[in-house]
Amino acid sequence: MTEPRETDTDAPEADFQLSRQDIDAINKAVDDGDGPALDAALEPMHAADIADLIEQLTPARRREFLHLYSGEIDGEILSEIDESIRDEVIEQLPREVVAEAVREMDSDDVVDLIEDMEEPEQQAILAALDESDRAAVERSLTWPEYSAGRLMQSEVVTAPEHWSVGEAIDFLRAEEWLPDQFYHVVLVDPRRHPTGYVTLGKLLASRREVLLRDITEDSFRTISARQDEGDVAYAFNKYHLISAPVVDDDDRLVGVITIDDAMSVLDEEHEEDFLRMARVSDDSHVSDGPFQTARQRLPWLVINLCTASLSALVISRFESTLAQLVILAALMPIVASTGGIAGTQSLAVAVRALATRELTSANARRVILRELMAGMLNGLGLAVILTLAGAIILGSLQIGLVLGMAMIANQVVAAMGGVLVPLSLSRLGLDPALASGTFVTTMTDMMGFFAFLGLASWILV
Amino acid sequence: MTEPRETDTDAPEADFQLSRQDIDAINKAVDDGDGPALDAALEPMHAADIADLIEQLTPARRREFLHLYSGEIDGEILSEIDESIRDEVIEQLPREVVAEAVREMDSDDVVDLIEDMEEPEQQAILAALDESDRAAVERSLTWPEYSAGRLMQSEVVTAPEHWSVGEAIDFLRAEEWLPDQFYHVVLVDPRRHPTGYVTLGKLLASRREVLLRDITEDSFRTISARQDEGDVAYAFNKYHLISAPVVDDDDRLVGVITIDDAMSVLDEEHEEDFLRMARVSDDSHVSDGPFQTARQRLPWLVINLCTASLSALVISRFESTLAQLVILAALMPIVASTGGIAGTQSLAVAVRALATRELTSANARRVILRELMAGMLNGLGLAVILTLAGAIILGSLQIGLVLGMAMIANQVVAAMGGVLVPLSLSRLGLDPALASGTFVTTMTDMMGFFAFLGLASWILV
Repeated sequence: MTEPRETDTDAPEADFQLSRQDIDAINKAVDDGDGPALDAALEPMHAADIADLIEQLTPARRREFLHLYSGEIDGEILSEIDESIRDEVIEQLPREVVAEAVREMDSDDVVDLIEDMEEPEQQAILAALDESDRAAVERSLTWPEYSAGRLMQSEVVTAPEHWSVGEAIDFLRAEEWLPDQFYHVVLVDPRRHPTGYVTLGKLLASRREVLLRDITEDSFRTISARQDEGDVAYAFNKYHLISAPVVDDDDRLVGVITIDDAMSVLDEEHEEDFLRMARVSDDSHVSDGPFQTARQRLPWLVINLCTASLSALVISRFESTLAQLVILAALMPIVASTGGIAGTQSLAVAVRALATRELTSANARRVILRELMAGMLNGLGLAVILTLAGAIILGSLQIGLVLGMAMIANQVVAAMGGVLVPLSLSRLGLDPALASGTFVTTMTDMMGFFAFLGLASWILV
Repeated sequence: MTEPRETDTDAPEADFQLSRQDIDAINKAVDDGDGPALDAALEPMHAADIADLIEQLTPARRREFLHLYSGEIDGEILSEIDESIRDEVIEQLPREVVAEAVREMDSDDVVDLIEDMEEPEQQAILAALDESDRAAVERSLTWPEYSAGRLMQSEVVTAPEHWSVGEAIDFLRAEEWLPDQFYHVVLVDPRRHPTGYVTLGKLLASRREVLLRDITEDSFRTISARQDEGDVAYAFNKYHLISAPVVDDDDRLVGVITIDDAMSVLDEEHEEDFLRMARVSDDSHVSDGPFQTARQRLPWLVINLCTASLSALVISRFESTLAQLVILAALMPIVASTGGIAGTQSLAVAVRALATRELTSANARRVILRELMAGMLNGLGLAVILTLAGAIILGSLQIGLVLGMAMIANQVVAAMGGVLVPLSLSRLGLDPALASGTFVTTMTDMMGFFAFLGLASWILV
């Protein structure tokens, strides 16, 4: 959005958040211990809003809330609650409420709920499920964490590939149980290999004698249960998939992933990259307390203390130059910090392009060259400004020239570091969003101080 | 993903990108001017992959490619091509190829294609559409940019709210034309106000005499055509919507938005935030040339030159202190840069939380207090390390103490700035991802230098 938002942030309709009045009413009901008033306030609300509300309460009020409202917590609300407080919520709910809630959930939501739990708590929840649901959840848990196998739901609507539209419709109309949400009928061969799918719309629109295999969608593609969930989300977005069958190592159908789950994963992956680039654990939540928050952020701060000490070491090599011309101390952060910004720019573009597969081995060399040239161009532009500023403001063309030359060198280092560091991390199989920033700003800081002070001691002193 | 990726990046199946061999084969066919070889290589590929390929070619080769392949460019490929090169591609295609491609597209894709074009080009494309499609596109274009009205498709399957399942099924089976993708039948009253929707799955599973209004989904909500598209994407993700009817100012049905389009918007909004936080125009593309790239990044670099000059001004006030104790010049970036990291951390968490509506007026005070305390805690922790390091490495407890005290002050400023700046921008209706970083690092730089040098001139000199 390049324009300012016109929407009124107080209107819940306008931006899908709870109004101040709603929250006040709910807080009051909780404080008064007034169960019926709470039920009345929450009655019209969507499960996702109730979950948001629970997340935003203070821990003490949350306990009170759960006590008053426990009877109404269902599977939908439970699966919407953020992982950061979900364990806390489950502990505070009566066991039978949790059991009842879990029985209503699709297998993928149960997997999501219990996969990070300790063995005994896992077992307690599994015990609440009936035989076939439990088996489905247990099968899902055998797939690696963050894989398609964990993301899929086992409930799939299938049809033999030789069926006609009429047979499929009759089957669906006779079937007692169908999933809440399904958009395709998956065609399978006798060995349960998926061979195509038909949308319900196409099914409804086709004549009864048409064969299913003649109206399958081109977009059909299967996903391996071992596939990383981030790649799955990428594929859904790229190929506009609505649902995709998941297969095991023998290519046999084991489940289906629907786009709403892929969309959640896409959202989480983006959030993770965003936070990682800023050196924040992707485990941070608004509901975290100050100690937790401080502890999550401290490691990167300590690492920065160490890398900044390297810069201090570089600067200390030029103590005699600085002693002779103290103004250099005031000017040196200009080169270092502008290099840092340029490095971050180049880095952000490269990290995104790697994530979207737009930066590949096919065009890496061109992108590196582009960054090099762009760095040189901006270095030159900034150098002109600095030289003039040096001459006019500081009254020293020489200082301006030193600033300018150092800036060119640092812009080139920034541009190169910004693309080469994430490319190298990615080649090593590491997440380029995670540590690139530290490498790049260490490079630009050290280079910024070194180039400026080095040139200064050569030319000025 | 916290674990390293197991997938082999050369396998196209594994991560949905083109293999080196495919690209080499295609490059060769283009260079040889071998149309049939090119057709054969592209035949099995998805439109999205062909679009990716076109984006990754050098401009010269792209021209050659389009010349050889123009007959095969259809609506699907055209709507997948990135905006950055789409105009270029359209210019190079024969007019009748574009016209044919546009006729195949859904109205939302046509809107997306032409909304940024100049009037004459827009008219040329609109002229290729038949009467009713053109009217639909023109209606869409009357809604504001980045609104639900631009995102929706006009093709909606509706049914009168009093119909039974049997009537709806008979209607669908008799209907000549149905959209490619649809998942719901929208119920409308006689004045075309949407009153609910029924999934196709529910329709198929229900008995013929059941009334549609008795099997509508709870998830139903309408979206105003004026709603910002980012809010629409947020609502789809939050409420797990698959499609949502769009209404005009009189609450009358004008179109429908489907989740795949909402997912694309979510992806773009995240990308925008990611790039904006790193001070890169969200208009940057991997296919941009060096001049374009340099020009897009220069403004923020020049702004940083100005803010860095403010820091230089702060430092220059302490020239006499620095002249007496040159080691201070080497140490001062430590306080400033560690403050910068802390500010970025706090900022990133706040910007995300604002985007996800987790940071609201209901909990803003608590989050501000949390940041304040976390900043103090980390300031204390870092101060202990710095004091010890000062005493042991530099042999001066006093310098260590000055470093430590300055660090505490700067960590608090960083934590406060990181949350108060985006909150304030957001209250003013501005995008907190856009300018917060510059404000916050300017604050932490200036505070870092000022606190350290101020304390040093008071205590040490």
